[in-house]
Amino acid sequence: MEKAQILEAIKAELTHIEKTLKFYLNSHYPFINQVSEYIIFSGGKRIRPLLSVLSAKLFLDSKKDLKNEALIYQTSIIFEYLHAATLLHDDVVDSAEFRRGRKAARNLWGNQATILVGDYLYAKSLRIASSLKNSELMEVITETTLLMSEGEILQLLNLDNTSLTVKDYEEVIFRKTAVLISACCEVGSILGGANLKERKALKEYGKALGMAFQIIDDLLDYTSLETGKELGKDFKEGKVTLPLIYALENALPEEKKRLLYLLKNQNTSEKDFLEAKFLIEKNKGFLETLKRAKYYVNKAKESLHPIPENFYKTLLLFISDYLLERKK
Amino acid sequence: MEKAQILEAIKAELTHIEKTLKFYLNSHYPFINQVSEYIIFSGGKRIRPLLSVLSAKLFLDSKKDLKNEALIYQTSIIFEYLHAATLLHDDVVDSAEFRRGRKAARNLWGNQATILVGDYLYAKSLRIASSLKNSELMEVITETTLLMSEGEILQLLNLDNTSLTVKDYEEVIFRKTAVLISACCEVGSILGGANLKERKALKEYGKALGMAFQIIDDLLDYTSLETGKELGKDFKEGKVTLPLIYALENALPEEKKRLLYLLKNQNTSEKDFLEAKFLIEKNKGFLETLKRAKYYVNKAKESLHPIPENFYKTLLLFISDYLLERKK
Repeated sequence: MEKAQILEAIKAELTHIEKTLKFYLNSHYPFINQVSEYIIFSGGKRIRPLLSVLSAKLFLDSKKDLKNEALIYQTSIIFEYLHAATLLHDDVVDSAEFRRGRKAARNLWGNQATILVGDYLYAKSLRIASSLKNSELMEVITETTLLMSEGEILQLLNLDNTSLTVKDYEEVIFRKTAVLISACCEVGSILGGANLKERKALKEYGKALGMAFQIIDDLLDYTSLETGKELGKDFKEGKVTLPLIYALENALPEEKKRLLYLLKNQNTSEKDFLEAKFLIEKNKGFLETLKRAKYYVNKAKESLHPIPENFYKTLLLFISDYLLERKK
Repeated sequence: MEKAQILEAIKAELTHIEKTLKFYLNSHYPFINQVSEYIIFSGGKRIRPLLSVLSAKLFLDSKKDLKNEALIYQTSIIFEYLHAATLLHDDVVDSAEFRRGRKAARNLWGNQATILVGDYLYAKSLRIASSLKNSELMEVITETTLLMSEGEILQLLNLDNTSLTVKDYEEVIFRKTAVLISACCEVGSILGGANLKERKALKEYGKALGMAFQIIDDLLDYTSLETGKELGKDFKEGKVTLPLIYALENALPEEKKRLLYLLKNQNTSEKDFLEAKFLIEKNKGFLETLKRAKYYVNKAKESLHPIPENFYKTLLLFISDYLLERKK
């Protein structure tokens, strides 16, 4: 299949998703819509609703089941609202100044409103979910939010822990990111009428893809070449992510000591960050991180083996590869 | 019926509720259970789960339907977890130092953990709700959380508004308190197998009772004679509640000016508060507030007219009257 055709199809889905995201922001209170729109329409990649739509269409006969299309888009935005809710709370918890290159919502409307609009988006998301009157789907979504909230707390508790292992790190990102992306795919497959085996395949696909997605995100925080992106945000905040964990495993004692010193330093300068980056690169932190991401991308693609080839499977495989190549 | 018999029955229900509240706090992470238990077992009156249980039992043949009992208690705690989640977020939003005479959770574990454990309890509550696999019930609960979150934001936006009317105030407390108490009763009635007319009666009962409950709460903030309770918390924080609204309506221009001055004063002394209390009392603020609470209690009791007399109806009517007499 031509790449242009794939990109065209994805673009078409994203247009429907954007419209639906806009349509459901309909609080009586303009202030609530204003803050919600600020976080929702701030340049997110829509990876979650997109995966949900594609996972549903994967199982539908596109000619026969067109009447379900509205339902598919409606369901897909549950995950973007939920994601936006966690971003708002994350920004308060991290005292973030910026988000996606713009001022963080808390910087414009304060922590109080940001916490409460986060709660609103969470409630909105679950309200849309319950309107589908599908208990199976509701169980997946509420179990997901529960695991995610535990993941957020785990991350907070790990904040000052510099002896995190790969396993610790992966437990956090599993809950923080992979569980939601897995739910997008699983819920999509339920909507599409997948059988249990197919549903499990999509759940596993989303889980592995989610792991790869977060690992690449954490790698790009060090290595992105995108203009306008502030590099080293995690490191400067003292956050331990996979590149650093691998580097600390491989480093000589004095390098390890130096890396931890730079990490804990209150005011990390650009020069400090570049030194840390050098030490991480020298100790294969980026190389091994990329390898781990590739492992998960392959795992994701393998999960789709039981699914017969079709247009939407091609799209899902394309997205898996795209994850590794993305620059932001 | 003897008052002793009524109190005995309520006590028995509360014992079951306490056990169930404890049973479901079972996160893998001890820290999450610790913070959750701190807020959940901090001397709450359990009015929400109690109403939910009684509203269910109202419609059950107690001998025939005993097998449903576990389900009834399980459902009832959804509302207490949800309530606890809002308390944690409220305390962060209000920068509260204390809650129910103890240090607020945020004072012990910080704002970050408090926000996230609030999210956890919210997720936990909806996870339990979804496990009941009842779409009708899920719709009531998610619609309730949505209205509540709007109410919290409305309250925040109203914070500096000293020209609030009774209508403005009642819109906030409807969303902040009455919607949840209404949902407790409605969901209970659904579980008990009520027909649509009965379900509506319980929904209205809960709504009116919730209004009365919050009005009395706001009155007690000025007038409680309970030892150990700090009086005037709302006024000292600059919060405009019903006693003040009525007083401002009735006050002479210079009294009104003085009341607003005392309200806006950054460091309200005990003497300032007593002066405000005197002015509110003089202008019938407390009297009219109590009258309004009585109006809602009567409305609540009238809502139960369509329900045939039975033991649980007696309990619900008793609780309505108790609300007016409570001292804390």
